Amino acid sequence: MTRRTSVSLRVGRVTIGGDAPIVVQSMTKTDTRDTSATIDQIMQLDDCGCEVVRLAVPDTEAAQSLVTIKRSVALPMIADIHFDYRLALEALEAGVDGLRLNPGNIGDKDQIARVVSAARHREVPIRIGVNAGSIPPGFQPQAPPVERMVNMALAQIRLMEGLDFGLIKVSLKAFDVPSTVEAYQMIARKIPYPLHLGITEAGLLRTGAIRSAIGIGILLYQGIGDTIRVSLSAHPCEEVFVAYEILKSLGLRKRGPTLVSCPSCGRAEVDIIALAEAVSKRMERIRTPIKVAVMGCVVNGPGEARDADVGIACGKGKGAIFRKGEIVGTASEQDLIEVLMAEVIRLDAGGHEKGQG
Amino acid sequence: MTRRTSVSLRVGRVTIGGDAPIVVQSMTKTDTRDTSATIDQIMQLDDCGCEVVRLAVPDTEAAQSLVTIKRSVALPMIADIHFDYRLALEALEAGVDGLRLNPGNIGDKDQIARVVSAARHREVPIRIGVNAGSIPPGFQPQAPPVERMVNMALAQIRLMEGLDFGLIKVSLKAFDVPSTVEAYQMIARKIPYPLHLGITEAGLLRTGAIRSAIGIGILLYQGIGDTIRVSLSAHPCEEVFVAYEILKSLGLRKRGPTLVSCPSCGRAEVDIIALAEAVSKRMERIRTPIKVAVMGCVVNGPGEARDADVGIACGKGKGAIFRKGEIVGTASEQDLIEVLMAEVIRLDAGGHEKGQG
Repeated sequence: MTRRTSVSLRVGRVTIGGDAPIVVQSMTKTDTRDTSATIDQIMQLDDCGCEVVRLAVPDTEAAQSLVTIKRSVALPMIADIHFDYRLALEALEAGVDGLRLNPGNIGDKDQIARVVSAARHREVPIRIGVNAGSIPPGFQPQAPPVERMVNMALAQIRLMEGLDFGLIKVSLKAFDVPSTVEAYQMIARKIPYPLHLGITEAGLLRTGAIRSAIGIGILLYQGIGDTIRVSLSAHPCEEVFVAYEILKSLGLRKRGPTLVSCPSCGRAEVDIIALAEAVSKRMERIRTPIKVAVMGCVVNGPGEARDADVGIACGKGKGAIFRKGEIVGTASEQDLIEVLMAEVIRLDAGGHEKGQG
Repeated sequence: MTRRTSVSLRVGRVTIGGDAPIVVQSMTKTDTRDTSATIDQIMQLDDCGCEVVRLAVPDTEAAQSLVTIKRSVALPMIADIHFDYRLALEALEAGVDGLRLNPGNIGDKDQIARVVSAARHREVPIRIGVNAGSIPPGFQPQAPPVERMVNMALAQIRLMEGLDFGLIKVSLKAFDVPSTVEAYQMIARKIPYPLHLGITEAGLLRTGAIRSAIGIGILLYQGIGDTIRVSLSAHPCEEVFVAYEILKSLGLRKRGPTLVSCPSCGRAEVDIIALAEAVSKRMERIRTPIKVAVMGCVVNGPGEARDADVGIACGKGKGAIFRKGEIVGTASEQDLIEVLMAEVIRLDAGGHEKGQG
């Protein structure tokens, strides 16, 4: 997992690209014109770990709300704009930290130049976001779909480079995972800009999380990607949760507890699934990166979960408490969760002292 | 995505390896000695699409239940055995279609030879399943963890090859995704046998599905893997569901509907998430592979979901029905789901006629 080299840029206080950690983004699902609902959702996103938030700006009223919203929230904000260069100018005026637009669809050459010039003046980056399905039908109709996406992005990039603008991020999203992966691989070799990863229209939480994890996971494993947004038909904090789980699985970010739990089988003598669920629930507010194991048997449990900071391995009527694979005590079945949680809270407090919280 | 070449073998009626489709496995979580609960769970697994089921056989009583269980179910059964070669002999006697064991831990050389000979006689394959955490501490303690896993598996493979036994499958599971990926990549180049993929102790449904999707997804994308088991602390049918979603995302298997739905944003004029959830619920029993889209806006929706067989794109108070990206009609907001479902049911019926159901 050697990371692709990219230039870095800043979206407000957040650095994307270069050596910066992979940034987690999401998008509000409120009506942007409903200022108070939108501020509320951005606060929730900030609280659940989102690092950059995007807002759809479909009309002037939405663009005007950005002023109030921007004043009320700390998260860097990106305005998502289509079809009208004036919305982009208004969003920049409102103080947004980034734009997402496709220069080709917001106006004529002169209008594009005005947007790019205003963005340059404010040092606001622009993401070129090509979605497989929304490429104009007339653009290279004979080219294979993946090449069309890449060439569309390259055309937009050249247009902006021609205007002497380099604060560019790029995304190439499709629903189809192999196409998305291929498109990103192809463009990764051609440009120095940071890449924003995502799978479009991935669906509901259960299926969309899997689809996104595979697509984004394959690319991150290849070192491609500087910021990710998991698109789900669900509350945006679910998107953030899934994004962190992807990054944690690949060791790219740390955040909150990781639960190692065995799937249970005919050898288990207690209800491991219920136990694991209870422990997971009790750890919801913990932000320190701790690895906690809930294992079904004393014979293999501690060994299998050797890399857990703390864990329990359950036998008949009682269980063992272990740290880093070594058994350090036992407890009766009914005390097991409390004893485990005491260990977790102790580690969490230690984490806060060390400033990991 | 060129698939690694492997020899194929049969687990009962199911072929694993070679050109065979990637096989979906799961494991019962009932007490194997509780014959009726175990039969019940295997029936549920058969119904939800599981293709091979594994059962833990921790003692003689469990081994004896296999006779009754085997007689009552159609799914190929694999017995999971540790520490005692007699359990393996009893399981073979009971007619199981596969074994999972590590020859090194079931007895002395003579006892291993008896098991291997009985398996050869019945043409029953054996999976060597190395888990990172349960390698004996004395085995190559200085080697890096990934090499230890691979070398442990190779030692077991050589042992069985030395007994002239080649009906071998191999798994190398760890909790850590990058280690698991590296271990499978390494062994894939060294042996011709089919590989069984999985991430151990992946955790609860929500996080375990993501972790498994990344690990298994990266390997499948590289062409590695012939059968998969998603380990979750959840009902085994959830494991099967996640397994199929992984395979569907990579275009490796088809099964049931795929819902393309947009994440919703400040541009949506209806509650897309609720709508997508309702459609998903209504499609639960459909087995024909149909791609169905629920999109938030009429402007981009049909284009973005061009590869969907059928879809809806929602506007204010009404929506458009589209097939393969072309709008074919409109309906009022309250009729939208019914009109869409009529299309889905029509396609499902067509699918059954063509024998896809």
